[in-house]
Amino acid sequence: MSTLWKSRYAQRTLGIKSSAIRELLKVAQRPGIISFGGGLPAPDVFPVQRFQEACHTVLADHGAEALQYGPTEGYGPLREMIASNISRYGIRAKAENVLITSGSQQALDLIGKMLINRGDRVLVEAPTYLGALQAFNVYGAQYVSVPVDEDGLLTEELDASLRAGPKFMYILPNFQNPSGVTLSEGRRHQLILLADKYGIPIVEDDPYGQLRYEGEHLAPLVVLDRENLRRDNGFTLGNVIYLSTFSKTLAPGIRLAWIVAPEDVISKLVLLKQAADLHTSTFNQYVAYEVARDGFLDQHVKLIRQVYRERRDAMLHALEEYFPHEVTWTHPKGGLFLWVTMPEGTDSEALFQSALAENVAFVAGDSFYANNGHEGSRHMRLNFSHSQPEMIREGVRRLSVAVKMQIRGSHHAAPMAKS
Amino acid sequence: MSTLWKSRYAQRTLGIKSSAIRELLKVAQRPGIISFGGGLPAPDVFPVQRFQEACHTVLADHGAEALQYGPTEGYGPLREMIASNISRYGIRAKAENVLITSGSQQALDLIGKMLINRGDRVLVEAPTYLGALQAFNVYGAQYVSVPVDEDGLLTEELDASLRAGPKFMYILPNFQNPSGVTLSEGRRHQLILLADKYGIPIVEDDPYGQLRYEGEHLAPLVVLDRENLRRDNGFTLGNVIYLSTFSKTLAPGIRLAWIVAPEDVISKLVLLKQAADLHTSTFNQYVAYEVARDGFLDQHVKLIRQVYRERRDAMLHALEEYFPHEVTWTHPKGGLFLWVTMPEGTDSEALFQSALAENVAFVAGDSFYANNGHEGSRHMRLNFSHSQPEMIREGVRRLSVAVKMQIRGSHHAAPMAKS
Repeated sequence: MSTLWKSRYAQRTLGIKSSAIRELLKVAQRPGIISFGGGLPAPDVFPVQRFQEACHTVLADHGAEALQYGPTEGYGPLREMIASNISRYGIRAKAENVLITSGSQQALDLIGKMLINRGDRVLVEAPTYLGALQAFNVYGAQYVSVPVDEDGLLTEELDASLRAGPKFMYILPNFQNPSGVTLSEGRRHQLILLADKYGIPIVEDDPYGQLRYEGEHLAPLVVLDRENLRRDNGFTLGNVIYLSTFSKTLAPGIRLAWIVAPEDVISKLVLLKQAADLHTSTFNQYVAYEVARDGFLDQHVKLIRQVYRERRDAMLHALEEYFPHEVTWTHPKGGLFLWVTMPEGTDSEALFQSALAENVAFVAGDSFYANNGHEGSRHMRLNFSHSQPEMIREGVRRLSVAVKMQIRGSHHAAPMAKS
Repeated sequence: MSTLWKSRYAQRTLGIKSSAIRELLKVAQRPGIISFGGGLPAPDVFPVQRFQEACHTVLADHGAEALQYGPTEGYGPLREMIASNISRYGIRAKAENVLITSGSQQALDLIGKMLINRGDRVLVEAPTYLGALQAFNVYGAQYVSVPVDEDGLLTEELDASLRAGPKFMYILPNFQNPSGVTLSEGRRHQLILLADKYGIPIVEDDPYGQLRYEGEHLAPLVVLDRENLRRDNGFTLGNVIYLSTFSKTLAPGIRLAWIVAPEDVISKLVLLKQAADLHTSTFNQYVAYEVARDGFLDQHVKLIRQVYRERRDAMLHALEEYFPHEVTWTHPKGGLFLWVTMPEGTDSEALFQSALAENVAFVAGDSFYANNGHEGSRHMRLNFSHSQPEMIREGVRRLSVAVKMQIRGSHHAAPMAKS
């Protein structure tokens, strides 16, 4: 019986709780619910027809190879395509600097496995991406958190935290999950200067970089990396490991992402990936290559930008219209999420319950903080990519009912607590 | 520069060497080489046309779901199909007992992550599957090895090894990789008795169980598990975690395998899998379900059996014809591999080099032993599934040239060493 197994579970599984998002995905499937939870791309923009053609071509022309085992590093032409695509953002990578992973979550897992020994500290933003915390928790990470504001990570508060000697920094510079904020150009330079000063490397997670709806593209950290600039020797990367994915530009169901890093770092990660899942689906890599090629990906990203910009605007307008004035929110220039801040004394977990009663869902703020307190209790993350504009409007209206109740309740609760 | 990264690699990546098989896969791609290395299924039996139809149907009927994020546990109908398929071997599992993984390698990784703390011992067969050693090494496993003969694991030598207190046993009962031997019915019962006596659970890896070319199917360990039998309470599983895969029956390029375990063990593994890669490709799960359904998988496995039986026989006949009488080999009743034993004093690593000169490849025995010595130096693993019969014959002929040279060399070397 499984008590025998239970007695054998390693420490490693203790303290890993099922993610709020995971539970939420289940609730959000209830009919009638409008969900601003999850981080789901809009299924209406999946290029289904292009996938049809790609699957047909791959199986007709490369069936024997695409269904066979493949190299751990990934499918050569796909690695080359990625290296070439990112070069227009100034990232100087060869195919050999690119490792294909089974989604970005695997990239985070492999990096955690490579770098984190139990008790090591990782510097993260507060709030930060929940999935990264889950990946790093498995290896016993401790955290140093630095807050973000509308311009991203507060680099002026970074110096003290870096003196605490974190193993690496985990940073989402563009349209951060969950807050939607973007690290400003000035702070990018400051961050790189400080990373250089203290010799602390950076893991730059950039799943949404291409999904910018206003303003100019900002140079990624991997491009600003001073070690890179100092040497300027062509194709060698430095102190920043860069992550991105096809999940938000093609489809998450194919589980395809990539790591860009110096070749010797890639070699280490390849060994770990080989032990973890041998390699990412050969078939999916062939299909993604076939879907993305000949400029299709670029055209498709333009379409996604247009659709998501409209949804972001629908959410911002509905928040203006329905939400009480004490509540504030971020104005993301891209990505999938915005971040709502309620007045002191409110509790987003309690709000979640009353929101469900109104048939609307979101993710409560506490999930996005490394140090398990209640830092997030005044916050919620709202996703605007998944629902159509009219549903967004209706969902925000429903949510505003619950929010107003919650704020009234917190006003009542305050004097009660005093008595 | 990446010395900064290097200084940060965790202990965990030390001592993981690139696998012999991986290097071999590269060499084996050299034109003109006949490779008995790797564990590649025959591309000629990939059901490409059926995949074409399945991809078309999935995208036409379920495009929005199949390209979206999905549950960590796996696609419901696929889990149900697997539970139903294995019930004919007496495995009493519900869909809730099945976790879909990104290949069996991920199953091994998650099990290692769940159970192994640095220094824990794992009982393995000698020789055993290289990929399992790689997965467990990452978590700092130590090993207790028990030899196999033509009837599988020598259960009479097990008692002493179990007293050493291994955390679990990792066993491949059917057509074992690399040796091709099958655990006899009597020894299966003995193994289960001993597991019960010492309270040591078993991880049963069964990738090839359906690929039997002669003799009767033997009950898997998970069915013989006494804890199971003792309770007979319907659908609860006991002390054996059972692994299998579509890699050898459909195609390895879709990276789809599964773990069958008690529900509370599955829950733990789900948390670990969520942190490792969120979930296995939704698209591939929909496609595999569509390929396998309506009895196709069963029909297809019959075809594979026929093709591989013919290749196994071709290899056995060629070995009879070409190999010198001092060399012996196993007679696998199924699976993909056989195991060759050469006389004392031979060295399969040296043989590998001279075999390459003859344009034929295999995997040298040392890779398959947990304790890094030279236990495998008289052995080689030959794969018979990948090449067509006439190529197998020619490959064995070429290999026999190198083998004869190696044996002559070892006769010469012996007196030399004495002088």
